[in-house]
Amino acid sequence: MVPIQVDGQRLLDHLAELAQIGADPTGGMTRLAYSPTDQQARAWFVSKAEEIGLAVSVDPVGNMLALEPGAGNGLPVLSGSHLDTVRRGGRFDGMLGVTAALEAVRAIRHRPDLPRGRPLGVLVLAAEESTRFGSVCLGSRTIVNDLPVDALQTLADANGVTLFEALQQAGLAPERLSEARRKPGWFYEFVEIHVDQADDLVRAGVPVGIITGIAAPTRLWITVEGQQAHSGAALMSERRDALTGAAEIVLTVEAIARTLADREIVGTVGVLRVQPGSMNTVPGLVELGVDIRGIKATTVDQVVEQVKQAADQVAEKRRLTVKISVVSRARPVQVSQRQIDRLIEACQTAGVEQIRLASRSAHDAMYLGQHGPISMLFVRNPAGISHNPAEEAQDEDIIAAGSVLATYLAWLAGQN
Amino acid sequence: MVPIQVDGQRLLDHLAELAQIGADPTGGMTRLAYSPTDQQARAWFVSKAEEIGLAVSVDPVGNMLALEPGAGNGLPVLSGSHLDTVRRGGRFDGMLGVTAALEAVRAIRHRPDLPRGRPLGVLVLAAEESTRFGSVCLGSRTIVNDLPVDALQTLADANGVTLFEALQQAGLAPERLSEARRKPGWFYEFVEIHVDQADDLVRAGVPVGIITGIAAPTRLWITVEGQQAHSGAALMSERRDALTGAAEIVLTVEAIARTLADREIVGTVGVLRVQPGSMNTVPGLVELGVDIRGIKATTVDQVVEQVKQAADQVAEKRRLTVKISVVSRARPVQVSQRQIDRLIEACQTAGVEQIRLASRSAHDAMYLGQHGPISMLFVRNPAGISHNPAEEAQDEDIIAAGSVLATYLAWLAGQN
Repeated sequence: MVPIQVDGQRLLDHLAELAQIGADPTGGMTRLAYSPTDQQARAWFVSKAEEIGLAVSVDPVGNMLALEPGAGNGLPVLSGSHLDTVRRGGRFDGMLGVTAALEAVRAIRHRPDLPRGRPLGVLVLAAEESTRFGSVCLGSRTIVNDLPVDALQTLADANGVTLFEALQQAGLAPERLSEARRKPGWFYEFVEIHVDQADDLVRAGVPVGIITGIAAPTRLWITVEGQQAHSGAALMSERRDALTGAAEIVLTVEAIARTLADREIVGTVGVLRVQPGSMNTVPGLVELGVDIRGIKATTVDQVVEQVKQAADQVAEKRRLTVKISVVSRARPVQVSQRQIDRLIEACQTAGVEQIRLASRSAHDAMYLGQHGPISMLFVRNPAGISHNPAEEAQDEDIIAAGSVLATYLAWLAGQN
Repeated sequence: MVPIQVDGQRLLDHLAELAQIGADPTGGMTRLAYSPTDQQARAWFVSKAEEIGLAVSVDPVGNMLALEPGAGNGLPVLSGSHLDTVRRGGRFDGMLGVTAALEAVRAIRHRPDLPRGRPLGVLVLAAEESTRFGSVCLGSRTIVNDLPVDALQTLADANGVTLFEALQQAGLAPERLSEARRKPGWFYEFVEIHVDQADDLVRAGVPVGIITGIAAPTRLWITVEGQQAHSGAALMSERRDALTGAAEIVLTVEAIARTLADREIVGTVGVLRVQPGSMNTVPGLVELGVDIRGIKATTVDQVVEQVKQAADQVAEKRRLTVKISVVSRARPVQVSQRQIDRLIEACQTAGVEQIRLASRSAHDAMYLGQHGPISMLFVRNPAGISHNPAEEAQDEDIIAAGSVLATYLAWLAGQN
């Protein structure tokens, strides 16, 4: 491998420019998917990509592919991420992957001496964050045809604007959505850099992490039905309290996830709604939203099965009716050993220390993994949190990761 | 005691007439406090009370007192209940107490031969149900000065209409609310008949229950604060999940209430709100509304103390911040043994089988108990539930209870 250095100052400048678009006076920035500020960031990207000489195409849901023209007909080597943010998000989530890809491609294009078998491209995926429409990775999921057919109408933001309307308002073409779908095998590899969303790299004391796999969420919707009753009149022994039953399920999800190795699985009840939810009424109905994530599909399936069994036991013991439906089931992605070995080599070539770790949060790369090989690099986040104005990355770590990416992409682009 | 029979047919007819006011085509009736249908029922009462020769006065919050004129200056003997209902309420809750009181007073007035030391009166309390304004017994609590000073402005219905505005719209005088307040000792005794809200009398196989005390709710508001985190990125071992902590508190409230005798105490978590409440976020904040009721204030206080201790343990174990505030603490009422003995005698005089039992739900009588002796009679409810169109009472039970009431009121009115 040939070491390729990125222009670190320009990379930092680009991040700073993006941080101004949608900046919130109280900290962080807000660029919800397809909003005017998101549009501004997208326009910024088009100008930067064209500056490098890339040809930008935009699909009907707003995914942008900036491709090298005239660099052969081989499958393209892609890198990128997203530009939309959560409310008051941090300065790196998404942006780091886009800006690093731009600088890596620019640096490689300055080296016409290197062998080239395939074109490079920067891919910006639309609507990665679920903040506006309650559903993640709308752009990449459209590409891999993993979005429900009625999503354009059923997904709506807090103001009732449907995804269809939002796309129209952003000048896109929701009526031609099917044209955004692609067939597996359209890229050689997709590489995404992302800021660490936890403190794994801080603890390890290294700037870069090589992702071995991406945990995928399986989501359950559980309804617990008991009998609504007067909180004074109903004796304890007579009750069929939906909330106490739901509380047992909440604790069971936690207990099951805890029995497994800490980094292997996580289980969360993030949604719990009580009906009627009044002080003087024993709850008659509770709805629970459960999110279970693991690196291995078999482990996730096993945990889902355990949760179902435990919920059935709660139902029987408490004379409740418990219904469980699997509302979504994303496939975890494994990165091949061959790719991991080459990424380690790229780190060594660039002189950057690294560890291997799994990504416990979903990324566009997870969905694109259904269409071809993907890999990911994480960058150390001293704050240890993401989706928060406090999200952090050090200049030297950003530049180091950019150079690892450039080195790896250059090697990939040199393959036949 | 002298047995007094009520006119059973008229009593049943009156109940049937009231059941038409605000009747819902799908079952039950809806007469929310101060609504046009509630106003209709109130007008119905005034005409019936005047028909018996009672003088009706209405206080600024709509409590109606129909008093015998010229029956001496002694403290009045009162009976009554309320006319407002929950949404799609039953035909007896409140109405049974008002109609039975009217018929009992009418029957006693037909017996000028009986000794009379004090006047009789029918008291109709306003806004007993919490359905419209989220707070119970607004009328009786105004009388005993047990309503927060800012209730007129802070209590509002689902449309944002404040209690002040609702009173104005009903032609009442919220600006003179203080005139509705009375001083303790203004009545000789208040007797309330109410349909059983559970199946205690059905199980005992008797038509009438004599209430030994009224359980009062103490209400706690608990906030559980943890750390909001990404449901994928946060490892199980690192989490400070507010919802799993709250779930332990829910189960603890149940467990503590269950350790005590079944009829002594009930504990309910009726409200549980999760923030941010999204599928991909470990909850950072949960709010719980807890209702604890018992006949004895000391037992309730002891349970509250146990809940606090258990919540502190959960907080420590899970590294959460738990705050508990007592938002209301109503005083349970005990009926004296002397009153219970006389009520038993009234039942025996009227030839009606009875048991003694505690009321686990609050009633206007509970609040009026702060101003003088109160007693209550429950009437068997074959459906075993209340606040529901299915609420039931048999004709013969209603008439039997009416005659017990008339016999008891006549005896009270004969006392010096």
